[in-house]
Amino acid sequence: MTLSNADNEFESQAQALDFDFNGEIKIGGNYAPVIQHGHQVYVSGQIPRVGDQVIVTGAAGQEVTLKQAQLAAQICILRALALLRNQLGSLSKIKQVLRITVYVNSAHNFTQQSEVADGASGILLRVLGEAGRHTRTSVGVAQLPKGATVELDLIAAI
Amino acid sequence: MTLSNADNEFESQAQALDFDFNGEIKIGGNYAPVIQHGHQVYVSGQIPRVGDQVIVTGAAGQEVTLKQAQLAAQICILRALALLRNQLGSLSKIKQVLRITVYVNSAHNFTQQSEVADGASGILLRVLGEAGRHTRTSVGVAQLPKGATVELDLIAAI
Amino acid sequence: MTLSNADNEFESQAQALDFDFNGEIKIGGNYAPVIQHGHQVYVSGQIPRVGDQVIVTGAAGQEVTLKQAQLAAQICILRALALLRNQLGSLSKIKQVLRITVYVNSAHNFTQQSEVADGASGILLRVLGEAGRHTRTSVGVAQLPKGATVELDLIAAI
Repeated sequence: MTLSNADNEFESQAQALDFDFNGEIKIGGNYAPVIQHGHQVYVSGQIPRVGDQVIVTGAAGQEVTLKQAQLAAQICILRALALLRNQLGSLSKIKQVLRITVYVNSAHNFTQQSEVADGASGILLRVLGEAGRHTRTSVGVAQLPKGATVELDLIAAI
Repeated sequence: MTLSNADNEFESQAQALDFDFNGEIKIGGNYAPVIQHGHQVYVSGQIPRVGDQVIVTGAAGQEVTLKQAQLAAQICILRALALLRNQLGSLSKIKQVLRITVYVNSAHNFTQQSEVADGASGILLRVLGEAGRHTRTSVGVAQLPKGATVELDLIAAI
Repeated sequence: MTLSNADNEFESQAQALDFDFNGEIKIGGNYAPVIQHGHQVYVSGQIPRVGDQVIVTGAAGQEVTLKQAQLAAQICILRALALLRNQLGSLSKIKQVLRITVYVNSAHNFTQQSEVADGASGILLRVLGEAGRHTRTSVGVAQLPKGATVELDLIAAI
Protein backbone atom coordinates (compact mmCIF):
# COMPACT_ATOMS: atom_id res chain seq x y z
CA MET A 1 0.00 0.00 0.00
CA THR A 2 1.29 3.40 -0.92
CA LEU A 3 0.65 6.13 1.61
CA SER A 4 -0.53 9.46 0.32
CA ASN A 5 1.58 12.55 0.93
CA ALA A 6 -0.86 13.56 3.63
CA ASP A 7 -0.52 10.25 5.46
CA ASN A 8 3.27 10.37 5.23
CA GLU A 9 3.39 13.93 6.45
CA PHE A 10 1.10 13.01 9.36
CA GLU A 11 3.61 10.31 10.38
CA SER A 12 6.47 12.79 10.14
CA GLN A 13 4.68 15.31 12.32
CA ALA A 14 3.80 12.68 14.93
CA GLN A 15 7.38 11.38 14.95
CA ALA A 16 8.77 14.91 15.25
CA LEU A 17 6.79 15.21 18.50
CA ASP A 18 7.82 11.66 19.42
CA PHE A 19 4.25 10.48 19.89
CA ASP A 20 2.66 7.35 18.47
CA PHE A 21 -0.96 7.66 17.34
CA ASN A 22 -1.15 4.26 15.65
CA GLY A 23 -2.93 2.41 18.47
CA GLU A 24 -6.48 2.85 19.62
CA ILE A 25 -7.41 6.48 20.30
CA LYS A 26 -9.10 6.50 23.72
CA ILE A 27 -12.31 8.45 24.15
CA GLY A 28 -14.03 9.08 27.49
CA GLY A 29 -17.82 9.17 27.73
CA ASN A 30 -20.58 7.59 25.63
CA TYR A 31 -20.23 9.36 22.31
CA ALA A 32 -18.52 8.80 18.97
CA PRO A 33 -15.01 10.09 18.21
CA VAL A 34 -15.98 10.70 14.57
CA ILE A 35 -19.31 10.95 12.73
CA GLN A 36 -19.33 10.89 8.94
CA HIS A 37 -22.55 11.78 7.15
CA GLY A 38 -22.88 12.69 3.50
CA HIS A 39 -19.92 14.83 2.55
CA GLN A 40 -19.13 16.04 6.05
CA VAL A 41 -17.18 14.56 8.91
CA TYR A 42 -17.27 15.81 12.51
CA VAL A 43 -14.54 15.06 15.05
CA SER A 44 -15.27 15.20 18.80
CA GLY A 45 -13.35 17.53 21.09
CA GLN A 46 -9.80 16.22 21.53
CA ILE A 47 -7.60 16.83 24.54
CA PRO A 48 -3.81 16.26 24.51
CA ARG A 49 -4.02 12.64 25.55
CA VAL A 50 -1.50 10.06 24.39
CA GLY A 51 -2.51 6.56 25.45
CA ASP A 52 -3.90 6.89 28.97
CA GLN A 53 -2.18 10.09 29.87
CA VAL A 54 -3.18 13.71 29.37
CA ILE A 55 0.21 15.20 28.54
CA VAL A 56 -0.43 18.88 29.22
CA THR A 57 -2.77 20.01 32.01
CA GLY A 58 -3.43 23.30 33.78
CA ALA A 59 -4.16 26.88 32.81
CA ALA A 60 -2.11 28.61 30.11
CA GLY A 61 -0.48 31.72 31.54
CA GLN A 62 -0.35 30.15 34.99
CA GLU A 63 1.11 26.61 35.40
CA VAL A 64 1.53 26.27 31.63
CA THR A 65 3.69 28.36 29.27
CA LEU A 66 2.63 29.46 25.78
CA LYS A 67 5.05 26.93 24.30
CA GLN A 68 3.62 24.07 26.36
CA ALA A 69 0.08 25.11 25.39
CA GLN A 70 1.11 25.10 21.72
CA LEU A 71 2.44 21.56 22.17
CA ALA A 72 -0.95 20.63 23.67
CA ALA A 73 -2.69 22.05 20.58
CA GLN A 74 -0.35 20.06 18.35
CA ILE A 75 -1.16 16.81 20.15
CA CYS A 76 -4.91 17.58 19.93
CA ILE A 77 -4.79 18.09 16.17
CA LEU A 78 -2.64 14.99 15.64
CA ARG A 79 -5.27 12.99 17.57
CA ALA A 80 -8.00 14.47 15.39
CA LEU A 81 -6.03 13.56 12.26
CA ALA A 82 -5.37 10.04 13.58
CA LEU A 83 -9.11 9.58 14.12
CA LEU A 84 -9.85 10.86 10.62
CA ARG A 85 -7.25 8.54 9.10
CA ASN A 86 -8.79 5.58 10.95
CA GLN A 87 -12.28 6.58 9.79
CA LEU A 88 -11.50 7.45 6.18
CA GLY A 89 -8.64 5.04 5.45
CA SER A 90 -6.45 7.90 4.28
CA LEU A 91 -6.14 11.59 5.06
CA SER A 92 -6.10 12.21 1.31
CA LYS A 93 -9.90 11.79 1.44
CA ILE A 94 -10.23 15.16 3.15
CA LYS A 95 -11.29 17.76 0.58
CA GLN A 96 -11.32 20.73 2.92
CA VAL A 97 -11.13 21.37 6.63
CA LEU A 98 -14.03 23.73 7.33
CA ARG A 99 -13.62 24.69 10.99
CA ILE A 100 -11.55 24.06 14.05
CA THR A 101 -12.60 25.44 17.42
CA VAL A 102 -9.80 25.69 19.96
CA TYR A 103 -10.64 25.98 23.66
CA VAL A 104 -7.71 27.07 25.82
CA ASN A 105 -7.79 26.58 29.60
CA SER A 106 -6.71 30.12 30.43
CA ALA A 107 -5.47 32.09 33.41
CA HIS A 108 -7.54 35.22 33.97
CA ASN A 109 -5.09 37.50 32.15
CA PHE A 110 -3.90 35.14 29.39
CA THR A 111 -4.89 36.51 25.98
CA GLN A 112 -2.74 34.48 23.54
CA GLN A 113 -5.39 31.87 22.64
CA SER A 114 -4.78 32.58 18.95
CA GLU A 115 -1.06 31.92 19.33
CA VAL A 116 -1.84 28.62 21.09
CA ALA A 117 -4.15 27.62 18.25
CA ASP A 118 -1.40 28.36 15.70
CA GLY A 119 0.22 25.13 16.94
CA ALA A 120 -2.72 23.17 15.56
CA SER A 121 -3.15 25.25 12.41
CA GLY A 122 0.47 24.80 11.41
CA ILE A 123 0.21 21.01 11.52
CA LEU A 124 -3.08 21.02 9.57
CA LEU A 125 -1.47 23.05 6.80
CA ARG A 126 1.71 20.97 6.71
CA VAL A 127 -0.15 17.64 6.63
CA LEU A 128 -3.04 18.52 4.31
CA GLY A 129 -1.71 21.39 2.24
CA GLU A 130 -4.43 23.47 0.60
CA ALA A 131 -7.11 21.08 1.94
CA GLY A 132 -5.88 21.97 5.42
CA ARG A 133 -6.83 25.64 5.12
CA HIS A 134 -9.56 26.21 7.71
CA THR A 135 -11.59 28.73 9.61
CA ARG A 136 -10.80 28.94 13.29
CA THR A 137 -12.23 30.15 16.55
CA SER A 138 -10.00 30.30 19.65
CA VAL A 139 -11.38 31.13 23.08
CA GLY A 140 -10.18 31.05 26.69
CA VAL A 141 -12.23 28.79 28.94
CA ALA A 142 -12.42 28.34 32.71
CA GLN A 143 -11.57 24.64 32.77
CA LEU A 144 -11.48 21.55 30.55
CA PRO A 145 -12.09 17.81 30.99
CA LYS A 146 -9.34 16.17 33.09
CA GLY A 147 -7.75 19.57 33.54
CA ALA A 148 -6.44 19.56 29.96
CA THR A 149 -4.81 22.76 28.75
CA VAL A 150 -6.37 22.61 25.27
CA GLU A 151 -9.39 20.98 23.66
CA LEU A 152 -10.21 21.27 19.98
CA ASP A 153 -12.81 19.91 17.60
CA LEU A 154 -13.02 19.87 13.81
CA ILE A 155 -15.43 19.75 10.87
CA ALA A 156 -14.24 18.75 7.40
CA ALA A 157 -15.64 18.10 3.93
CA ILE A 158 -14.78 14.77 2.25
CA MET B 1 -51.57 9.07 14.67
CA THR B 2 -48.99 6.49 15.65
CA LEU B 3 -45.95 7.82 17.44
CA SER B 4 -42.58 6.50 16.35
CA ASN B 5 -40.39 4.65 18.82
CA ALA B 6 -38.24 7.76 19.10
CA ASP B 7 -41.23 9.98 19.97
CA ASN B 8 -42.47 7.46 22.54
CA GLU B 9 -39.07 7.13 24.11
CA PHE B 10 -38.77 10.91 24.28
CA GLU B 11 -42.04 11.02 26.26
CA SER B 12 -40.76 8.30 28.60
CA GLN B 13 -37.52 10.14 29.27
CA ALA B 14 -39.35 13.42 29.92
CA GLN B 15 -41.81 11.69 32.25
CA ALA B 16 -38.99 9.92 34.08
CA LEU B 17 -37.61 13.36 34.93
CA ASP B 18 -41.16 14.57 35.66
CA PHE B 19 -40.95 17.46 33.19
CA ASP B 20 -43.46 18.41 30.53
CA PHE B 21 -42.03 19.71 27.24
CA ASN B 22 -45.33 19.72 25.34
CA GLY B 23 -46.09 23.43 25.65
CA GLU B 24 -44.27 26.27 23.98
CA ILE B 25 -40.50 26.17 24.43
CA LYS B 26 -39.48 29.66 25.54
CA ILE B 27 -36.48 31.28 23.90
CA GLY B 28 -34.88 34.53 25.04
CA GLY B 29 -33.42 36.99 22.53
CA ASN B 30 -34.18 37.65 18.85
CA TYR B 31 -33.06 34.45 17.17
CA ALA B 32 -34.59 31.18 16.03
CA PRO B 33 -34.71 28.08 18.24
CA VAL B 34 -34.24 25.82 15.19
CA ILE B 35 -33.07 26.43 11.62
CA GLN B 36 -33.57 23.72 9.03
CA HIS B 37 -31.82 24.07 5.68
CA GLY B 38 -31.28 21.34 3.15
CA HIS B 39 -30.48 18.15 5.01
CA GLN B 40 -29.20 19.81 8.16
CA VAL B 41 -30.92 21.19 11.22
CA TYR B 42 -29.29 23.44 13.82
CA VAL B 43 -30.65 23.88 17.35
CA SER B 44 -29.80 26.99 19.39
CA GLY B 45 -28.05 26.73 22.75
CA GLN B 46 -30.46 25.31 25.34
CA ILE B 47 -30.30 25.98 29.05
CA PRO B 48 -32.16 23.83 31.64
CA ARG B 49 -35.33 25.91 31.53
CA VAL B 50 -38.74 24.37 32.07
CA GLY B 51 -41.52 26.87 31.43
CA ASP B 52 -40.30 30.16 32.90
CA GLN B 53 -37.81 28.72 35.31
CA VAL B 54 -34.17 27.80 34.91
CA ILE B 55 -34.09 24.65 37.04
CA VAL B 56 -30.35 24.33 37.71
CA THR B 57 -28.14 27.41 38.13
CA GLY B 58 -24.64 28.02 39.45
CA ALA B 59 -21.18 26.59 38.93
CA ALA B 60 -20.64 22.83 38.89
CA GLY B 61 -18.16 21.89 41.59
CA GLN B 62 -19.23 24.80 43.74
CA GLU B 63 -22.98 25.35 44.40
CA VAL B 64 -23.90 22.48 42.08
CA THR B 65 -23.00 18.79 42.39
CA LEU B 66 -22.04 16.53 39.48
CA LYS B 67 -25.41 14.81 39.75
CA GLN B 68 -27.32 18.11 39.59
CA ALA B 69 -25.23 19.22 36.61
CA GLN B 70 -26.05 15.95 34.85
CA LEU B 71 -29.74 16.63 35.46
CA ALA B 72 -29.23 20.06 33.90
CA ALA B 73 -27.67 18.42 30.83
CA GLN B 74 -30.62 16.03 30.62
CA ILE B 75 -33.13 18.89 30.65
CA CYS B 76 -31.13 20.75 27.98
CA ILE B 77 -31.13 17.78 25.61
CA LEU B 78 -34.85 17.11 26.21
CA ARG B 79 -35.55 20.74 25.28
CA ALA B 80 -33.47 20.34 22.13
CA LEU B 81 -35.38 17.17 21.24
CA ALA B 82 -38.73 18.87 21.96
CA LEU B 83 -37.76 21.68 19.59
CA LEU B 84 -36.74 19.17 16.92
CA ARG B 85 -40.01 17.26 17.32
CA ASN B 86 -41.98 20.50 16.93
CA GLN B 87 -39.96 21.45 13.85
CA LEU B 88 -39.86 18.07 12.11
CA GLY B 89 -43.19 16.58 13.21
CA SER B 90 -41.45 13.48 14.51
CA LEU B 91 -38.05 12.65 15.94
CA SER B 92 -37.94 9.72 13.55
CA LYS B 93 -36.98 12.25 10.83
CA ILE B 94 -33.53 12.59 12.38
CA LYS B 95 -31.06 10.53 10.36
CA GLN B 96 -27.99 11.28 12.46
CA VAL B 97 -27.02 13.65 15.23
CA LEU B 98 -23.73 15.15 14.08
CA ARG B 99 -22.53 17.25 17.02
CA ILE B 100 -23.47 18.42 20.47
CA THR B 101 -21.41 21.04 22.23
CA VAL B 102 -21.86 21.11 26.00
CA TYR B 103 -20.84 24.20 27.96
CA VAL B 104 -20.59 23.62 31.71
CA ASN B 105 -20.57 26.57 34.11
CA SER B 106 -17.56 25.38 36.10
CA ALA B 107 -15.82 26.13 39.37
CA HIS B 108 -12.12 26.77 38.86
CA ASN B 109 -11.10 23.23 39.78
CA PHE B 110 -14.04 21.28 38.31
CA THR B 111 -12.81 18.96 35.56
CA GLN B 112 -15.76 16.56 35.07
CA GLN B 113 -17.34 18.35 32.08
CA SER B 114 -17.35 15.08 30.15
CA GLU B 115 -19.24 13.29 32.93
CA VAL B 116 -21.80 16.13 32.97
CA ALA B 117 -22.27 15.81 29.22
CA ASP B 118 -22.86 12.06 29.58
CA GLY B 119 -26.28 13.01 30.99
CA ALA B 120 -27.23 14.45 27.61
CA SER B 121 -25.53 11.75 25.54
CA GLY B 122 -27.35 8.95 27.37
CA ILE B 123 -30.76 10.43 26.56
CA LEU B 124 -29.83 11.01 22.91
CA LEU B 125 -28.83 7.36 22.53
CA ARG B 126 -31.91 6.05 24.35
CA VAL B 127 -34.34 8.21 22.37
CA LEU B 128 -32.79 8.00 18.90
CA GLY B 129 -30.85 4.73 18.97
CA GLU B 130 -28.15 4.53 16.30
CA ALA B 131 -29.27 7.90 14.85
CA GLY B 132 -28.46 9.39 18.25
CA ARG B 133 -24.74 8.56 18.04
CA HIS B 134 -22.96 11.90 17.97
CA THR B 135 -19.66 13.70 18.27
CA ARG B 136 -19.30 15.81 21.36
CA THR B 137 -17.27 18.66 22.78
CA SER B 138 -17.53 19.50 26.49
CA VAL B 139 -15.87 22.55 27.98
CA GLY B 140 -15.94 24.46 31.27
CA VAL B 141 -17.03 28.08 30.91
CA ALA B 142 -16.92 31.06 33.26
CA GLN B 143 -20.65 31.80 33.24
CA LEU B 144 -23.83 31.14 31.23
CA PRO B 145 -27.02 33.06 30.40
CA LYS B 146 -29.26 33.43 33.48
CA GLY B 147 -26.62 31.68 35.56
CA ALA B 148 -27.52 28.30 34.05
CA THR B 149 -25.27 25.39 34.97
CA VAL B 150 -25.28 23.88 31.47
CA GLU B 151 -25.92 25.07 27.93
CA LEU B 152 -25.83 22.80 24.91
CA ASP B 153 -26.44 23.09 21.19
CA LEU B 154 -26.86 20.50 18.47
CA ILE B 155 -26.50 19.86 14.73
CA ALA B 156 -28.26 16.95 13.06
CA ALA B 157 -28.78 15.50 9.58
CA ILE B 158 -32.39 14.84 8.45
CA MET C 1 -23.17 48.03 -10.35
CA THR C 2 -26.38 48.00 -8.35
CA LEU C 3 -26.00 47.02 -4.74
CA SER C 4 -28.54 44.61 -3.32
CA ASN C 5 -30.73 45.68 -0.42
CA ALA C 6 -28.56 43.58 1.87
CA ASP C 7 -25.35 45.30 0.74
CA ASN C 8 -26.93 48.74 1.12
CA GLU C 9 -28.27 47.92 4.55
CA PHE C 10 -24.82 46.63 5.57
CA GLU C 11 -23.33 50.00 4.60
CA SER C 12 -26.02 51.81 6.60
CA GLN C 13 -25.37 49.73 9.69
CA ALA C 14 -21.60 50.25 9.44
CA GLN C 15 -22.05 53.99 8.94
CA ALA C 16 -24.48 54.19 11.87
CA LEU C 17 -21.66 52.84 14.05
CA ASP C 18 -19.19 55.12 12.23
CA PHE C 19 -16.88 52.26 11.25
CA ASP C 20 -15.44 51.56 7.84
CA PHE C 21 -15.15 47.89 6.85
CA ASN C 22 -14.21 48.51 3.23
CA GLY C 23 -10.46 47.97 3.59
CA GLU C 24 -8.67 44.74 4.27
CA ILE C 25 -10.06 42.81 7.22
CA LYS C 26 -7.05 41.85 9.35
CA ILE C 27 -6.79 38.32 10.67
CA GLY C 28 -4.22 37.12 13.20
CA GLY C 29 -2.73 33.62 12.96
CA ASN C 30 -2.29 31.22 10.05
CA TYR C 31 -5.87 30.34 9.15
CA ALA C 32 -8.50 31.52 6.66
CA PRO C 33 -11.07 34.19 7.50
CA VAL C 34 -13.70 32.44 5.37
CA ILE C 35 -13.98 28.94 3.89
CA GLN C 36 -16.63 28.24 1.29
CA HIS C 37 -17.32 24.64 0.34
CA GLY C 38 -20.35 23.37 -1.50
CA HIS C 39 -23.38 25.26 -0.24
CA GLN C 40 -21.90 26.23 3.10
CA VAL C 41 -19.65 29.04 4.20
CA TYR C 42 -17.81 29.21 7.53
CA VAL C 43 -16.50 32.46 9.03
CA SER C 44 -13.66 32.40 11.60
CA GLY C 45 -14.13 33.85 15.07
CA GLN C 46 -14.28 37.65 14.85
CA ILE C 47 -13.26 40.05 17.60
CA PRO C 48 -14.27 43.75 17.62
CA ARG C 49 -11.25 44.89 15.66
CA VAL C 50 -11.40 47.87 13.33
CA GLY C 51 -8.17 48.28 11.36
CA ASP C 52 -5.38 47.52 13.83
CA GLN C 53 -7.29 48.24 16.99
CA VAL C 54 -9.48 46.04 19.14
CA ILE C 55 -12.18 48.56 20.07
CA VAL C 56 -13.71 46.88 23.11
CA THR C 57 -11.58 44.85 25.55
CA GLY C 58 -12.09 43.49 29.06
CA ALA C 59 -14.69 41.48 30.90
CA ALA C 60 -18.39 42.33 30.58
CA GLY C 61 -19.83 43.09 33.99
CA GLN C 62 -16.47 44.36 35.22
CA GLU C 63 -14.56 46.93 33.10
CA VAL C 64 -17.17 46.74 30.35
CA THR C 65 -20.89 47.63 30.53
CA LEU C 66 -23.67 45.67 28.83
CA LYS C 67 -24.05 48.47 26.30
CA GLN C 68 -20.33 48.44 25.42
CA ALA C 69 -20.40 44.65 25.10
CA GLN C 70 -23.37 44.93 22.73
CA LEU C 71 -21.37 47.39 20.62
CA ALA C 72 -18.55 44.82 20.56
CA ALA C 73 -20.99 42.19 19.29
CA GLN C 74 -22.18 44.60 16.60
CA ILE C 75 -18.64 45.22 15.37
CA CYS C 76 -17.94 41.47 15.32
CA ILE C 77 -20.99 40.71 13.17
CA LEU C 78 -20.23 43.62 10.81
CA ARG C 79 -16.72 42.20 10.35
CA ALA C 80 -18.21 38.77 9.62
CA LEU C 81 -20.58 40.34 7.08
CA ALA C 82 -17.74 42.33 5.48
CA LEU C 83 -15.75 39.11 5.08
CA LEU C 84 -18.77 37.37 3.54
CA ARG C 85 -19.35 40.25 1.13
CA ASN C 86 -15.69 40.12 0.06
CA GLN C 87 -15.89 36.35 -0.41
CA LEU C 88 -19.27 36.14 -2.15
CA GLY C 89 -19.35 39.44 -4.05
CA SER C 90 -22.69 40.33 -2.49
CA LEU C 91 -24.47 39.57 0.76
CA SER C 92 -27.53 38.71 -1.31
CA LYS C 93 -25.85 35.33 -2.01
CA ILE C 94 -26.55 34.26 1.56
CA LYS C 95 -29.59 31.97 1.60
CA GLN C 96 -29.72 31.39 5.33
CA VAL C 97 -27.53 32.04 8.32
CA LEU C 98 -27.45 28.72 10.16
CA ARG C 99 -25.56 29.44 13.39
CA ILE C 100 -23.73 32.13 15.26
CA THR C 101 -21.80 31.30 18.42
CA VAL C 102 -21.14 34.29 20.65
CA TYR C 103 -18.38 34.09 23.27
CA VAL C 104 -18.54 36.85 25.88
CA ASN C 105 -15.52 37.62 28.07
CA SER C 106 -17.46 37.61 31.35
CA ALA C 107 -16.97 38.67 34.93
CA HIS C 108 -17.73 35.86 37.35
CA ASN C 109 -21.29 37.06 38.06
CA PHE C 110 -22.23 38.42 34.61
CA THR C 111 -25.15 36.44 33.18
CA GLN C 112 -26.40 38.64 30.32
CA GLN C 113 -24.54 36.86 27.49
CA SER C 114 -27.80 36.53 25.58
CA GLU C 115 -28.46 40.27 25.79
CA VAL C 116 -24.92 40.93 24.52
CA ALA C 117 -25.52 38.59 21.58
CA ASP C 118 -28.74 40.44 20.72
CA GLY C 119 -26.48 43.22 19.41
CA ALA C 120 -25.23 40.89 16.70
CA SER C 121 -28.57 39.23 16.02
CA GLY C 122 -30.31 42.57 15.46
CA ILE C 123 -27.84 43.57 12.75
CA LEU C 124 -28.06 40.17 11.04
CA LEU C 125 -31.84 40.48 10.83
CA ARG C 126 -31.76 44.08 9.63
CA VAL C 127 -29.13 43.43 6.95
CA LEU C 128 -30.29 40.04 5.66
CA GLY C 129 -34.01 39.97 6.49
CA GLU C 130 -35.46 36.46 6.57
CA ALA C 131 -32.11 35.01 5.42
CA GLY C 132 -30.62 36.51 8.57
CA ARG C 133 -32.71 34.35 10.92
CA HIS C 134 -30.27 32.12 12.75
CA THR C 135 -29.71 29.77 15.63
CA ARG C 136 -27.51 31.09 18.37
CA THR C 137 -25.40 29.97 21.28
CA SER C 138 -24.08 32.54 23.78
CA VAL C 139 -21.67 31.62 26.53
CA GLY C 140 -19.46 33.41 29.06
CA VAL C 141 -15.77 32.65 28.70
CA ALA C 142 -12.75 33.31 30.91
CA GLN C 143 -10.75 35.31 28.37
CA LEU C 144 -10.48 36.00 24.62
CA PRO C 145 -7.68 36.73 22.14
CA LYS C 146 -6.15 40.18 22.70
CA GLY C 147 -8.47 40.67 25.67
CA ALA C 148 -11.47 41.22 23.39
CA THR C 149 -14.85 41.48 25.09
CA VAL C 150 -16.69 39.44 22.43
CA GLU C 151 -15.78 36.87 19.79
CA LEU C 152 -18.30 35.35 17.40
CA ASP C 153 -18.25 32.94 14.49
CA LEU C 154 -20.84 32.06 11.87
CA ILE C 155 -22.02 29.35 9.49
CA ALA C 156 -24.30 30.15 6.56
CA ALA C 157 -25.88 28.43 3.57
CA ILE C 158 -25.35 29.99 0.14
